[in-house]
Amino acid sequence: MSVANGRALLAMPGPTNVPDRVLQAMMRPAEELSSTTIVNLTETLLGDLKAIFRTTGETFIYAANGHGGWEAALTNVLSRGDKILVLASGRFAIGWGETARFMGAEVEVLAGSWRAAVDPAAVEERLRRDTGHEIKAVLTVQIDTASGVLNDIPAIRSAIDAAGHPALYMVDGVASIGCMPFEMDAWGVDVAMSASQKGLMTPPGLAFVAANGKALHAHQRATMRTPYWDWTARLNPLLYMKHCGTPPEHLMFALRAALDMIFAEGLEAVWLRHALLASATHAAMSKWAEGQVLSYNVVEPLQRAPSVTTILVDGDPAAITDYAQQVCGVTLGIAIGDLSGKAFRIAHMGHVNAPMVLGSLSAVEMALQAKGIPHGSGGVAAAIAYLGTHAREVAA
Amino acid sequence: MSVANGRALLAMPGPTNVPDRVLQAMMRPAEELSSTTIVNLTETLLGDLKAIFRTTGETFIYAANGHGGWEAALTNVLSRGDKILVLASGRFAIGWGETARFMGAEVEVLAGSWRAAVDPAAVEERLRRDTGHEIKAVLTVQIDTASGVLNDIPAIRSAIDAAGHPALYMVDGVASIGCMPFEMDAWGVDVAMSASQKGLMTPPGLAFVAANGKALHAHQRATMRTPYWDWTARLNPLLYMKHCGTPPEHLMFALRAALDMIFAEGLEAVWLRHALLASATHAAMSKWAEGQVLSYNVVEPLQRAPSVTTILVDGDPAAITDYAQQVCGVTLGIAIGDLSGKAFRIAHMGHVNAPMVLGSLSAVEMALQAKGIPHGSGGVAAAIAYLGTHAREVAA
Amino acid sequence: MSVANGRALLAMPGPTNVPDRVLQAMMRPAEELSSTTIVNLTETLLGDLKAIFRTTGETFIYAANGHGGWEAALTNVLSRGDKILVLASGRFAIGWGETARFMGAEVEVLAGSWRAAVDPAAVEERLRRDTGHEIKAVLTVQIDTASGVLNDIPAIRSAIDAAGHPALYMVDGVASIGCMPFEMDAWGVDVAMSASQKGLMTPPGLAFVAANGKALHAHQRATMRTPYWDWTARLNPLLYMKHCGTPPEHLMFALRAALDMIFAEGLEAVWLRHALLASATHAAMSKWAEGQVLSYNVVEPLQRAPSVTTILVDGDPAAITDYAQQVCGVTLGIAIGDLSGKAFRIAHMGHVNAPMVLGSLSAVEMALQAKGIPHGSGGVAAAIAYLGTHAREVAA
Amino acid sequence: MSVANGRALLAMPGPTNVPDRVLQAMMRPAEELSSTTIVNLTETLLGDLKAIFRTTGETFIYAANGHGGWEAALTNVLSRGDKILVLASGRFAIGWGETARFMGAEVEVLAGSWRAAVDPAAVEERLRRDTGHEIKAVLTVQIDTASGVLNDIPAIRSAIDAAGHPALYMVDGVASIGCMPFEMDAWGVDVAMSASQKGLMTPPGLAFVAANGKALHAHQRATMRTPYWDWTARLNPLLYMKHCGTPPEHLMFALRAALDMIFAEGLEAVWLRHALLASATHAAMSKWAEGQVLSYNVVEPLQRAPSVTTILVDGDPAAITDYAQQVCGVTLGIAIGDLSGKAFRIAHMGHVNAPMVLGSLSAVEMALQAKGIPHGSGGVAAAIAYLGTHAREVAA
Repeated sequence: MSVANGRALLAMPGPTNVPDRVLQAMMRPAEELSSTTIVNLTETLLGDLKAIFRTTGETFIYAANGHGGWEAALTNVLSRGDKILVLASGRFAIGWGETARFMGAEVEVLAGSWRAAVDPAAVEERLRRDTGHEIKAVLTVQIDTASGVLNDIPAIRSAIDAAGHPALYMVDGVASIGCMPFEMDAWGVDVAMSASQKGLMTPPGLAFVAANGKALHAHQRATMRTPYWDWTARLNPLLYMKHCGTPPEHLMFALRAALDMIFAEGLEAVWLRHALLASATHAAMSKWAEGQVLSYNVVEPLQRAPSVTTILVDGDPAAITDYAQQVCGVTLGIAIGDLSGKAFRIAHMGHVNAPMVLGSLSAVEMALQAKGIPHGSGGVAAAIAYLGTHAREVAA
Repeated sequence: MSVANGRALLAMPGPTNVPDRVLQAMMRPAEELSSTTIVNLTETLLGDLKAIFRTTGETFIYAANGHGGWEAALTNVLSRGDKILVLASGRFAIGWGETARFMGAEVEVLAGSWRAAVDPAAVEERLRRDTGHEIKAVLTVQIDTASGVLNDIPAIRSAIDAAGHPALYMVDGVASIGCMPFEMDAWGVDVAMSASQKGLMTPPGLAFVAANGKALHAHQRATMRTPYWDWTARLNPLLYMKHCGTPPEHLMFALRAALDMIFAEGLEAVWLRHALLASATHAAMSKWAEGQVLSYNVVEPLQRAPSVTTILVDGDPAAITDYAQQVCGVTLGIAIGDLSGKAFRIAHMGHVNAPMVLGSLSAVEMALQAKGIPHGSGGVAAAIAYLGTHAREVAA
Repeated sequence: MSVANGRALLAMPGPTNVPDRVLQAMMRPAEELSSTTIVNLTETLLGDLKAIFRTTGETFIYAANGHGGWEAALTNVLSRGDKILVLASGRFAIGWGETARFMGAEVEVLAGSWRAAVDPAAVEERLRRDTGHEIKAVLTVQIDTASGVLNDIPAIRSAIDAAGHPALYMVDGVASIGCMPFEMDAWGVDVAMSASQKGLMTPPGLAFVAANGKALHAHQRATMRTPYWDWTARLNPLLYMKHCGTPPEHLMFALRAALDMIFAEGLEAVWLRHALLASATHAAMSKWAEGQVLSYNVVEPLQRAPSVTTILVDGDPAAITDYAQQVCGVTLGIAIGDLSGKAFRIAHMGHVNAPMVLGSLSAVEMALQAKGIPHGSGGVAAAIAYLGTHAREVAA
Repeated sequence: MSVANGRALLAMPGPTNVPDRVLQAMMRPAEELSSTTIVNLTETLLGDLKAIFRTTGETFIYAANGHGGWEAALTNVLSRGDKILVLASGRFAIGWGETARFMGAEVEVLAGSWRAAVDPAAVEERLRRDTGHEIKAVLTVQIDTASGVLNDIPAIRSAIDAAGHPALYMVDGVASIGCMPFEMDAWGVDVAMSASQKGLMTPPGLAFVAANGKALHAHQRATMRTPYWDWTARLNPLLYMKHCGTPPEHLMFALRAALDMIFAEGLEAVWLRHALLASATHAAMSKWAEGQVLSYNVVEPLQRAPSVTTILVDGDPAAITDYAQQVCGVTLGIAIGDLSGKAFRIAHMGHVNAPMVLGSLSAVEMALQAKGIPHGSGGVAAAIAYLGTHAREVAA
């Protein structure tokens, strides 16, 4: 009596649903490394990633995952012994900081909560106390995939500036870039990084880093540099150097198709689509929460991410996630880290549209009913009402 | 402000959503016509189609569409001048009859309605009057894709038997086979036909016909026979004869993958999945109908098809279907034939699961709200409630 | 000690090697039948097939194989009892004639040889004797895939004209169109047909027919017409009528990609490529033939097809074809019909380039050596020398 | 007059021809990171890579290219300031050494030639002089992709042992593993690395490292370690740790298919296939060399790699490689490093069979003829004769 056999619906926060056209793009032979095809492909991808990151700085593509991207970002601008300040708001800034510590940085974590965004005032206060400017970099995530927290990236920049602090501002946009506004240059982000498998709708295996002039200047003195990640080598006009060896051609073919889709829709339209679908999710969740069993992990509405919603469960979240998987074919995100066993996550990220998100929400609502979990009724109906009111036809 | 860009969701009644695995199966070179691969593939497909049709008769695979399958079925058992009785319940039995008339049959249509199933009593009455047994075949559809009518195939057989009539009983199962019980042998169907692109989840381009002993006997005297469709040739053990030339290899690779998926789930489980998803659709529709603008085309609940629901609109159905397409990326079925401009269709057929059907229903509900079309509220909620109550985890 | 495991190389005359890009094109969801995508796809394919057939007449696309295409061509212009003249030069014109006889035509075969082209003078002589113009159609193939014979299509038209005979001139171009010049209008061909899986590089499952004004006029009086193949219906502007039901979408996506490749290369360039590769094959074969065991089936060089070469073997051809398959991964064509067990075939047809054909020839030469079959040495060397002399770089 | 349009034939040494089945394997949705599918996939790949490397040690899979694999190998066992000995025989051991130097190793290059294998006696001599055992690791390649040199890996181990030296023995098998015997444990290799895109027939983007107990012991004290490459983390039973984040799922699906193909053929059979095809290439080249324009880069026959042949040209090699590309669709390898502009390379590596290699050789021979480059005749004929004599059918 399962109604699961249809298309697998990935509602976990990465890897996300890969569009057919993106898979299709990988169905071709490899090309010679230095062929015009690969040279041009590399150039257009690097250029288009600038448009995605909203920067006139330099972009880099790595055969790696997001953790590789972290390492790439850090090694290129830091030296062993450098002090860095990590702004906690869940799992991933902490993880990035652990990466830095492993490589020899002195890491200080600015205490934060899994349930709230970084407080810019606290950042400013801490940096003001660093009168010797020992802190070389401030690390944060725009969206913490685990907690579902959304940080205010320009506000943190303002805090750094208010403290008159010269530290590099480094932002992990893995769970946000391609899903919501990210303005590297306008917001004064010095180093940003992301990966292929979330908002950018590409199979996992590519990491991206962008660096502005300040970061490239810091790069000159960095001693953590290693050849594979090294920017200097990758800024070489030779294709082989640009990729530090063989480029990951098929994933690049896939990324090309994904970026073409994003630009065809319009980057701002993509952001708006995510915003609408997140609001629809919140409309459902706010109803369900009336049952006092489900609650938002992120307390403040404006601090909830537009790409993933983390929901606390007073009880066993596996009752919901297992049901969604087995009965509906919907893969929700399980909780990780501090929230392990206490929450689940609904992703609304990447290649998702109204029926997909409403389908995921419906699976949750089915589970709540089937498992007798108290919940306010009309969650999905509220989501539909929200979208029915706010979504509109787009002129051709 | 569109929320359409995600995976295209086909909620029209064919061609339906092709599973990734089925598309994947076509990604390979052709094989030599008489290679072991193709010989075995043909054998297993013909055998497995018997399991799908539930017959010990013969099965035939044609490179053709459903209309080709109609022609194949007719030419093999009829002669020019033969009288046939077509049982009307929408568009498609009529169309099949038109095919027969074109080829020289004398066609009588037993009057019926687009809004109701064939009345077995009327069939019995008509056949009793045919004391000379001039009627050589009775044609019907199990599900009319246009009207959404479900006919009672065993009841019609009982009517034929009650009349003591020897006519061949021929059934079009294009929109039903693979979606609901079809028992060719147990129900006394002599000739059945279907196609690849609906319940069987395969790209369009293949038609299937099954024939029992009585049909094969009739075949001996048929004069409408033509080489491409001819059963005698296709029963030849030679592979080349079996396909009347080059087999449609890639579509057969696809069909193989689709049948593997059906058998892995279990054919009865597939039927049950469709029944649950149809009931969920009905739960939503029954709510919407309270608004007095939408109404079921098929009046009697038991005569509504488990694979497609045709909904009359007192107004312009394009307001709904265009919105679903443009805002949600959901392709609903437009109405055809007598219902053109007066209805739309929601398919819940083939490779569909709960989130897909609930996603389609959600798109309709969004459209009703956005367009200010009066409707009872809580349609999708009712569908969710239905599935939450009736669907269950399946033991591994 | 096999050296077979690499890419399967199809050197049999259909189905041929499908380009990666053509397979890739099928990796996508179905589309709604009457969507702009499918309407435009149909229009461009029908138009581009006119460019392929070199006609301003009408073109038709069928979900069917070549035998279906035969039936389509015949039923649309003939009536039961019509007399037709079949020009023998191997297996396939005979087969086409058998199709016609099955459907009620009176078929006369103009005797011919498997080893030589149709003699236009004999055609003229026979038609002159048909003073009452009872013969309604003359059927021939341009290339007989079995015998490897190439017929002179314009010369046969001249013979028909010289006899002042009004019969329709119908040509099977399955093994030639896309491989060599075919000029439907310039050569006065009234009905031409072909299929997807040879020169047109598409998976099997599509048949194509082209008709000029004279054929369309004959169509008006034809009584063999059946709905699936019927031109009148398919000339209807409605998409659904144009395909007599659901279009074979994925095969059409594939055909689109294949035609794009042909036009990108240039149709004449494609013909020239085939001519060069055929000559290279002949260069090799002429050497091998010195051993007195292998000989050309077609005696006259100018009557040898540019797409397939049939080679007689004084001994067991399976020694060669099995070796090529098992040791080299090359699938040669086995002989069929009258030549069964006495010959094999090398196709140089469709998506083939120099290394592919030279690779196939090398497999044959390896087999000759390994099996101790007497043969003149230097076959492949002669093929290389031919191509080294005649092939040239193409300006970008 | 080009005969290039057919399947692209990659005869350059990486990325190589990706089998259809391997591309096909990537046509599927991503899976949840910690799903049974991905956990099992990871386990079987790690296990099967042990079978490929012939080791009972540990294996590691990285989203990276070969240069990433170099860095992974080095960082896990070395500390800044460690001295290493690099055995020169072309470009790539040098390159690996440069990677080590960048990260802080003291690198000594044992002088060698681009035209000859490393001399084990010289290795022994150098190590004997290192009485203080300052050298912590000896780095070599089994095959240098640039020079085409094959080094004798067990002989170098014997040399190290003869010197009684405890240095780690580290081998780059990028261009050899999967193409020829590599016996990590039997030959006493401590750390071996490779990548996906050569003998392993998978798209580029994966690097592999294998480590024995001695290497894992050295790992404990290494200070070059960084989180992304770190073995300790990747030996963690948690899937997420094993991949240091999101696994490169689609490339892993591809690798799974490629390894399945290798095991189905049999690893030894794969090696033998490469040996036969290399010998065939040498048979052709030895003829061509008679013209005094082409010559082997590697002087000693036994030092020529079985996966790639580097050919010096007394003249402009682009005349040959451009012709092969433009006229034949064959991508030969251009020369790099010291040989840039002086040589070209023919790869016979990975998914290649007799017709593919003979097709590549034919393209070269066509070029020699077309460009009037003096060469001994009968090169391809000699290759055919070699294979005709040495290749055999394999029992089913």
